[in-house]
Amino acid sequence: MSLESRYKPFLSSRVEARKFKQFWNNDVPSHLNPHPHPINLGGGLPHEGLFPIESMHLNVLDRPFEYRDYRFRSSKLHVEEHDGSVAPGPGPAATNERELVSQKFADGSMVDIWRYEPENPNNAPIFSGFQYSETRGMPQLVEFCRNFISYVNPPAYPDWDLTFADGTADSLFKIFETLAESGVAVLVEEFTFTPTVFNIEATGATAIPIKVDVCADPQGQGINVEFLTDLLENWSQSKYAHLSKPRLLYTIPTGQNPTGMTLSLHKRKQIYALAEKHDFIIVEDDPYGYLRFPYYDPENPTFNPYEAHQYTIDKYVSEVLAKSFLTIDTSGRVLRCETFSKVFFPGLRLSFIVGNKYLISKILEFAEVSTRAPSGVSQIVVNNVIQKWAPNFETPQKAWLSWVMKVAGQYNHRRNVLFQALNATEAFKQGLFTLIPITSGMFACLEIKFEKFPNIKNCAEGMQALGDKLIEEGVNVVQGINMAVCTKFSLERSYFLRVTFAYASNDKQLREAAKRLGKSVQRLLAEYKSEV
Amino acid sequence: MSLESRYKPFLSSRVEARKFKQFWNNDVPSHLNPHPHPINLGGGLPHEGLFPIESMHLNVLDRPFEYRDYRFRSSKLHVEEHDGSVAPGPGPAATNERELVSQKFADGSMVDIWRYEPENPNNAPIFSGFQYSETRGMPQLVEFCRNFISYVNPPAYPDWDLTFADGTADSLFKIFETLAESGVAVLVEEFTFTPTVFNIEATGATAIPIKVDVCADPQGQGINVEFLTDLLENWSQSKYAHLSKPRLLYTIPTGQNPTGMTLSLHKRKQIYALAEKHDFIIVEDDPYGYLRFPYYDPENPTFNPYEAHQYTIDKYVSEVLAKSFLTIDTSGRVLRCETFSKVFFPGLRLSFIVGNKYLISKILEFAEVSTRAPSGVSQIVVNNVIQKWAPNFETPQKAWLSWVMKVAGQYNHRRNVLFQALNATEAFKQGLFTLIPITSGMFACLEIKFEKFPNIKNCAEGMQALGDKLIEEGVNVVQGINMAVCTKFSLERSYFLRVTFAYASNDKQLREAAKRLGKSVQRLLAEYKSEV
Repeated sequence: MSLESRYKPFLSSRVEARKFKQFWNNDVPSHLNPHPHPINLGGGLPHEGLFPIESMHLNVLDRPFEYRDYRFRSSKLHVEEHDGSVAPGPGPAATNERELVSQKFADGSMVDIWRYEPENPNNAPIFSGFQYSETRGMPQLVEFCRNFISYVNPPAYPDWDLTFADGTADSLFKIFETLAESGVAVLVEEFTFTPTVFNIEATGATAIPIKVDVCADPQGQGINVEFLTDLLENWSQSKYAHLSKPRLLYTIPTGQNPTGMTLSLHKRKQIYALAEKHDFIIVEDDPYGYLRFPYYDPENPTFNPYEAHQYTIDKYVSEVLAKSFLTIDTSGRVLRCETFSKVFFPGLRLSFIVGNKYLISKILEFAEVSTRAPSGVSQIVVNNVIQKWAPNFETPQKAWLSWVMKVAGQYNHRRNVLFQALNATEAFKQGLFTLIPITSGMFACLEIKFEKFPNIKNCAEGMQALGDKLIEEGVNVVQGINMAVCTKFSLERSYFLRVTFAYASNDKQLREAAKRLGKSVQRLLAEYKSEV
Repeated sequence: MSLESRYKPFLSSRVEARKFKQFWNNDVPSHLNPHPHPINLGGGLPHEGLFPIESMHLNVLDRPFEYRDYRFRSSKLHVEEHDGSVAPGPGPAATNERELVSQKFADGSMVDIWRYEPENPNNAPIFSGFQYSETRGMPQLVEFCRNFISYVNPPAYPDWDLTFADGTADSLFKIFETLAESGVAVLVEEFTFTPTVFNIEATGATAIPIKVDVCADPQGQGINVEFLTDLLENWSQSKYAHLSKPRLLYTIPTGQNPTGMTLSLHKRKQIYALAEKHDFIIVEDDPYGYLRFPYYDPENPTFNPYEAHQYTIDKYVSEVLAKSFLTIDTSGRVLRCETFSKVFFPGLRLSFIVGNKYLISKILEFAEVSTRAPSGVSQIVVNNVIQKWAPNFETPQKAWLSWVMKVAGQYNHRRNVLFQALNATEAFKQGLFTLIPITSGMFACLEIKFEKFPNIKNCAEGMQALGDKLIEEGVNVVQGINMAVCTKFSLERSYFLRVTFAYASNDKQLREAAKRLGKSVQRLLAEYKSEV
């Protein structure tokens, strides 16, 4: 059965109306003898000599937070009160930021992007990178990502493809616009990145929450497979019987937002088997998947295998990373969303989607009549930074992963610091909250144990009261209930706070935040006691 | 009547389904006393120290093609055979491209973008520019554009607003998704940038061609107002009677693509009056509007008021630029699409939409559930380059316009060169084609005068045969018919070629292309003669 005949029934009714035909045609009829050097008065492109920028030079770090070791402090590169860097460190010999850049430019360690790049076709020059370009993405970067997927998460079938989009929000928008519409049921983890629910609902489709197990057991974390099986097997008896059986499952399988849960490979296989049986497409949103670490070990609270150099790149790929649904996808029913936001930077608005050729072609057709190509500036930055690193490694993919692992090491460290500090609070020692162990991502789930608060009858009110304490004590977190697809469905599982260790400036801030958190929880207990 | 009650009936049925609510909430209830220095464990943003780039340095030109005057030739900055620059020129003292960049960095003439920028809030630093940011656009750049519109094309009503998008294709997509759907009629110039027609049709709406006058008379150019009036007045007798009266008019009013026509202010007022009477929204797509020049004068073929310094910035704004429909819009029924593609560079994928507050809020809501913010890298580049130029001018807007006028001067020059060379061809002298005079943009319309080809009975076939000659002679152009909304409707007005002077490398190429064009037309005449 061809991909088209298998997946055409999944397309939304709006896909039919999407047509795109170029008005220019550079095909040469076979009976003609074309001029060898035609002049282009056809394409409405500005000549690159009209661009105001002729070269771009990127001062790239070798590792995150490297600048904290500089021998100077500059208000252009450092924020004393925020980044906690007080004393100058053992960095390069420069005495100020301009000298540093001059030196780096002179010794060739900047990423230099010029108007033309005749020697190295893997680099994208300004000439093409800042020009109108292919909707799918810059050929060099598309090729890089193709090889990256083949190396890290090879799909279990041959006819796969990929296309770029303007960040994962845009990837998901394009996917749901192509596959969802009024009357379509989309399964979603009961707590999720709620903007995606708005993406889904904007198509007219219905997001249906599925239970998530928030637990320590690595085999048990994430989507509750029994619940899902039961829902699918007994759809016609469910409250969703007025809808057709689900066409899509949206999941964040690794370091789930907000719960921090990571699906085991066993669960992934079970879910994939359900997808095969009940014929739905799995939309795998994996922004956090590269940020992997072992469980926090209170006996060895600072353990960081990245800092300890225990991971080679190959080991990281084959043993450390959680395998994408793609790797068990024999039918082409997985759409994987990747992004550079978390491991390069968010402002790129650059993402890509991997899936079967037919569905990718439909998503690409949508891009042709909407956003067209992502920012060429974003693409050229990512591509050329990776290519700058490439010569020191076997492949550009490994060069990129070497950076990614340094970032993952930072998250490992931050997770350690926050967990250690939270474990050290009185509130934790009194069992007033627990921290669900995590192995991925930037989020952890701090569960309030209301059984320890005998005078709190209404847990939802208790969470509200805790929120007030947190504002007074000075720590921003997200309430679990705010990330529920359906408040009613998830209320009794919602008594948690999403905490992230991504954005704090440094260890000191994380420790201070943990203290404030602990104090807020203790104040909650104290005030409810005193009210009785 | 409020904007909402006036324009709500224009919204597509899909708008209702678009909802967006943040899951984070930083509002502080009034009864609380918030901590003065809260720590953020809430937002899932990577800390800026995790970004691999800590500074970005842009080598910006003072004027287009400045590098042709450099004293050196480098394969990184020059392409000999393409850009026609043979002998080194009188440029800066550098002897190679690296020395040039070092010197520019040292003397402070690069655009330096650092992690932080505590001194100048108009510059966007990496800290915020490369981070997740506001969907509407970076505050600094939004503010710049607001002031820019107020200066150059102030709307004739107070409650206007603007929002950014990912290039005009995306602006138009967002507009039509918000305002058009199945059953909606959208008026379109009969020849247009056809990808927009695919945007329109992807919503299910119907694009309806309106006659365009392609003529020399500056008062006559563009949309045929009599045709439009007649169509609107007699809608129920028209072939479109099955549709409601048009909800939208899509127009490229200045330097129209592909015809090169520019609507006079008088015609704009007539069309606006029709919009008021028949209650439709005007979508003004103006990518070429800043590229303005006087008619080509065969008596003074090299006349270029930009090179002759005949335009001050104020004169350019008040007398040279064609006024946007915004400036006569008293009801808030104009949506103006601007882009940085043609005057900065296309790879930015950065555009903005100006319109009434209500409609802009609906478009912004759509962005919240789709693309979200445009590329931060693109935004920071545009913003900070403009801010670099700003101190030498009264306002940042004038600084920007100073660059824009230099680009316009180049287009003026290129138009002159191409027109002069085409006028010099034998084919032109024999009257085998005419060139419609233009005052804006990058396109001109070369009309084949088939009355001079007595043996060609079928003009469409003649155009086809001419296409073959052009391939053999080596010049790429676009056939008018390929840009028709409806082939049947426009066939007899379609016997033209769209030629652009934007992309050719230099004057020599333009002259050579003109020769080839002339020769192709002559061959057409000769071959049809000989066939008789």
